[in-house]
Order: sequence, then C-alpha cells, then structure tokens
Amino acid sequence: MNKLDLLACHNRIKPHIHNTPVLTSTAINTRVGASVFFKCENFQRAGAYKIRGATNAILLLTDAQRENGVVTHSSGNFAQAVALAAKSLGIKAHIVMPSSAPEIKKVGVSEYGGHIYECQPTLEARQAMADEIGRETGATFLHPSNDENVIVGQGTAAIELLEKQPDLNFIFCPVGGGGLIAGSSLAATYFGNNCKVIGGEPFEADDAYRSLLSGKIEENETVNTIADGLKTTLGDKNFPIILKHVSKIVRVTEEEIVKAMRLVWERMKIIIEPSSAVTLAALLCDASENPDTYRNKKVGIIISGGNVDLNNLPF
Amino acid sequence: MNKLDLLACHNRIKPHIHNTPVLTSTAINTRVGASVFFKCENFQRAGAYKIRGATNAILLLTDAQRENGVVTHSSGNFAQAVALAAKSLGIKAHIVMPSSAPEIKKVGVSEYGGHIYECQPTLEARQAMADEIGRETGATFLHPSNDENVIVGQGTAAIELLEKQPDLNFIFCPVGGGGLIAGSSLAATYFGNNCKVIGGEPFEADDAYRSLLSGKIEENETVNTIADGLKTTLGDKNFPIILKHVSKIVRVTEEEIVKAMRLVWERMKIIIEPSSAVTLAALLCDASENPDTYRNKKVGIIISGGNVDLNNLPF
Repeated sequence: MNKLDLLACHNRIKPHIHNTPVLTSTAINTRVGASVFFKCENFQRAGAYKIRGATNAILLLTDAQRENGVVTHSSGNFAQAVALAAKSLGIKAHIVMPSSAPEIKKVGVSEYGGHIYECQPTLEARQAMADEIGRETGATFLHPSNDENVIVGQGTAAIELLEKQPDLNFIFCPVGGGGLIAGSSLAATYFGNNCKVIGGEPFEADDAYRSLLSGKIEENETVNTIADGLKTTLGDKNFPIILKHVSKIVRVTEEEIVKAMRLVWERMKIIIEPSSAVTLAALLCDASENPDTYRNKKVGIIISGGNVDLNNLPF
Repeated sequence: MNKLDLLACHNRIKPHIHNTPVLTSTAINTRVGASVFFKCENFQRAGAYKIRGATNAILLLTDAQRENGVVTHSSGNFAQAVALAAKSLGIKAHIVMPSSAPEIKKVGVSEYGGHIYECQPTLEARQAMADEIGRETGATFLHPSNDENVIVGQGTAAIELLEKQPDLNFIFCPVGGGGLIAGSSLAATYFGNNCKVIGGEPFEADDAYRSLLSGKIEENETVNTIADGLKTTLGDKNFPIILKHVSKIVRVTEEEIVKAMRLVWERMKIIIEPSSAVTLAALLCDASENPDTYRNKKVGIIISGGNVDLNNLPF
C-alpha cells in the first residue's frame, strides 16, 4: 500500500462519499493549548467513516464478484456502511448482525436495503454465519478492518484533512479493529509533513495499547466500554502498519470519554458517538500530562461517527 | 433600513462573527421534496444568531456610551450574546435575567463576563430593573428584537445564506420577538431573487400568526411551548417590516417540533434547540399540505441556535 494506492483509492471513491467539513472550536483550542481541527466523519454518508473502505472494496470487485454481492458481519457502523455502499453501487449486501445489536442499527441496515441475518453475539458465531452465507451465495466477504482495500479507503479521511491542513503535527484516531488508524497512519506518512499519528483507546478495551508494547496482537481482556465501536481487536493486515507508523496509543477512562463527548456536544453543537469522543479524551489527557508537546501545535482529530441512540444517552 | 444599511452592517460585524456553514441532508431533501439549505447559526459564537445584532448595536455606540456599557434583559440566547459581544469589544454588560432562567444560561453569561442581576420572572419586572440599571450606570439599553441596529444585524445570516445560494425560492425563520424574521425579510427583499420569507411559530405562542391576520400587534394567550426562545411578542420597530415583507406564518404543534428536532439530530448529526426545530417543522407541515409549492424548489432554513440543556432533553 503505497502513496499511489491511496491516491487511486481516493479518486475512485470520491464520487460516492462526502468530503466532510473540518470544524474548529475556540473553547477546545483554549482547553488543549493547541489548534485542533476536527474532521467530521459523523457527517459522512451513513453517519461514519466506514463507507469509505466499504465503497473502495466494492468498487474493486470483479464483474463476476459483483453478481454475487458481498457479505459482512458487524453490529454497527460497518453494517450500515456496507448496506448503503452496496445499494448505491447496485449490488446485494448480506449483513450478519449479532442478536445484541442495537435496534436502531438494524433499522438503519434495513432502510439501506441490506439483508440482515441474526446470529449469536460472539465473534465466532458471526464469522461462521458469514462464511456459510459466502459459501451458499458466492458473496465476497468484506472484513470491517482487516482488509487492505478497506484500510486504504479509511485512510482517505486523513488525506482530505491534510489537504485542508497540510502542516498538522499530530493526527488522533480512535482504535477499534485497527482499519482507520492503519489507513490514517499511511496517509500521514505519505501526505503529511512529519505528522505523527496517535491512537485513543478505552482502558476497558486496551488491546492495541498492549499490542504495541508487546509487538504482537493481544486480545481484549475486558470490553466493558461505552465506546461500542472499539471493542474489536487488531488483525494481521493492519497490525504491521500500526506497529510501523503509529507513535503511541493513549488510554482513557469511561468518565473521560463521556466528558469529552459532552464537551463536543455542548461547545461544537455536533453529535458524536462515544467511540469518537475517545479521541478528544486522549488528546485532552495527553495534553494535560505533556503540555509542551502540544503548545501552539496543530492537531487533527478524526471524528469517526455520529450514530447514537438518542433514547440511551450517557447524560 | 435600506440595502446599504444591511451591507454596511455586514461589513461592520464580519470580523467579530463566524460566517457559519450551510449544510444539507439527502434524507430531509427527500422527505420535503425540495432542496433544503440549513444556515447553521447553532455554530455561531455563543451558540446562536443573536450575537450578530448585539455586535452591530455595540459597534454603533458613541465613545461616551461605550464608557458606560450596555444593559439588556433576557432569559436566554440574547443574554449570552450581549455578554460575549461586550467582552470581545471591551465594554461592560449588565444582564437582567429572570429567576426562572435555566442555570446553564446563567453560567454561560457569567463565563462570558456579564454582570447578572436576578429579577422576578415577568416582562414588567425585567424591564423595570433594566431601566433602573440604565439610570444608575448610564448603560445603554439594548432590546433583544425591537431595535433597528439589532434587526439589521440579525438579517446578516440571511445575507450570507443568499451569498451561497442566490436563487433560493423561500427562506424559513422562527418567529419569537420578531428581530430575526424582520432582518431576514429585509435581506431576502434586497439580496434575494424573488425569495419569499415564511415564519414558523408554535401554536402555543402564535402571537405573530394572529398579528399578521389582524394587522396589529397581538399578545400571546399561552406560551406553553418547548420552544423557549419564541415566547416573546413582536414590537413596533419590527412588526411593520414583518407585515410588509413576510409571506405567511405556519403554526406547528409541540409534537411536530420535537419530531423535527429529533430528525435533525439523527440525520444531520447537529445539535439544534427546539426554537430552531420549529422552522423545519413548519416547512415539513406546509410541504405536506402544499407539495406543489415546494417541488424541486430551493428552500433556506435559518437554524437559529443550538443551546440546549443536555440534562433535560425531550427524548
């Protein structure tokens, strides 16, 4: 995955995605002691960055593969993204969702025309059912984060951010399955000007933090976090990229996540989901411990999504 | 108040306000059957359009008047706007707030450096206290909506919207004290291309609807509405403008307001307050009764503000 792969991917998906706005907040700049630029993927189609990678992967299918559609498993944003991208590009989407997935996400997938298959809420059950659907229908399996075409696609948000702010010193990303931060770190390497990438992760699902320390993919010990998009673990395709290009990962508490989420809602008047708030929480935490590192610097933040259940808010 | 007054005002306040973004939503366009452009004053400084008029009025003070500062009474967004505008321009702000004003708004005024005076929650008590402060301190009284400098200032949001979308067929505004819709209707007249201005108002505070019918300023009979910014009545400075330039006013139920608010939060991922949702509710209502009027037309909506108490949401 070199610079040209990223550029080609961006050109390929551009007609199908929004170039989302970059917003700022004087109140948050003052709090951090730096200039912070929020790349608002909560305004993206289907409410999250996920449609970038899904669209890229679908556009790269062969004609024969397009005939049989795609299959994925996801409890959340990737499910909606694949359903919408597939619908927009005229192919069939089979979506395996755990029975525990929020009703609102199932409704979203259904509205976008995805065919939902319900399974037990374990990673094994999800993968087994997706494999079976793939065998039966010939649909191509799309992994939400451990797929090169998906990783490159997710990196295009950082490309657009760097187009608007070429001299960012840092980009902060949330870390779940690792697709977004891997893609973003490639974008920062190829298109940034000595731009460091830092991950934000809940203490309650800190597999990536420990993986970076040990040098091998670690599992989560707990996933008791409000950041429901960050419960997954890294994969063999994205981990080497993360190991090479990500500077560090900052862990945050559940309380810090909710506080950061509320700060953005109140001050910026935009709706972000808890997984997105992890990133600002990580910046606030690190800037408070290392103020000199960020003083008068330019920091990008990828706001990953805005899909929240308004009936079930943490405040 | 002619075209040059509006242009001069816009140039005067430009350095002190945000030119807020104009957002769109495919889902809402489909629902309305028209192209809808949201002028996002919820992203404005202090979270509402009010700082436009406040800034204009303060910039037009004489040096002697600046010495003694300004005084206003408001339970909400105008209080915060005057406090912030005064602070930014280096003058003193005396803010009379009713004892019933939400704690969060008092905190806002206080953070912006305004001097708060608490009074009984009646319009008479508010005006009496403001008058007394004016006499004692020499501060100039700023009315939230019935002041020519304020009206012209509020009209600049519509100017910016028309700069981006010159061929709007309609602009929808909420109607509270009448300052925003009066200013917007002047802007539509001078800068639009046959652009009609339509007001949105709750049934529960429909003084402007009845005033437009009777041709004289009517009082509210009830103000039992969630749209707390729209409980005030029109004034002798803005009513003649409204009578001349506003096409009609559409009334909406409390349920329609909450539904429209939720639609914007869920689909556009932006935080708007109930008073802002009245406008979209009015458009949805009118477009459902008169679909031909809006089919394939361009409709602007002024999203007036985004100051909500997250601890007290209607959903």
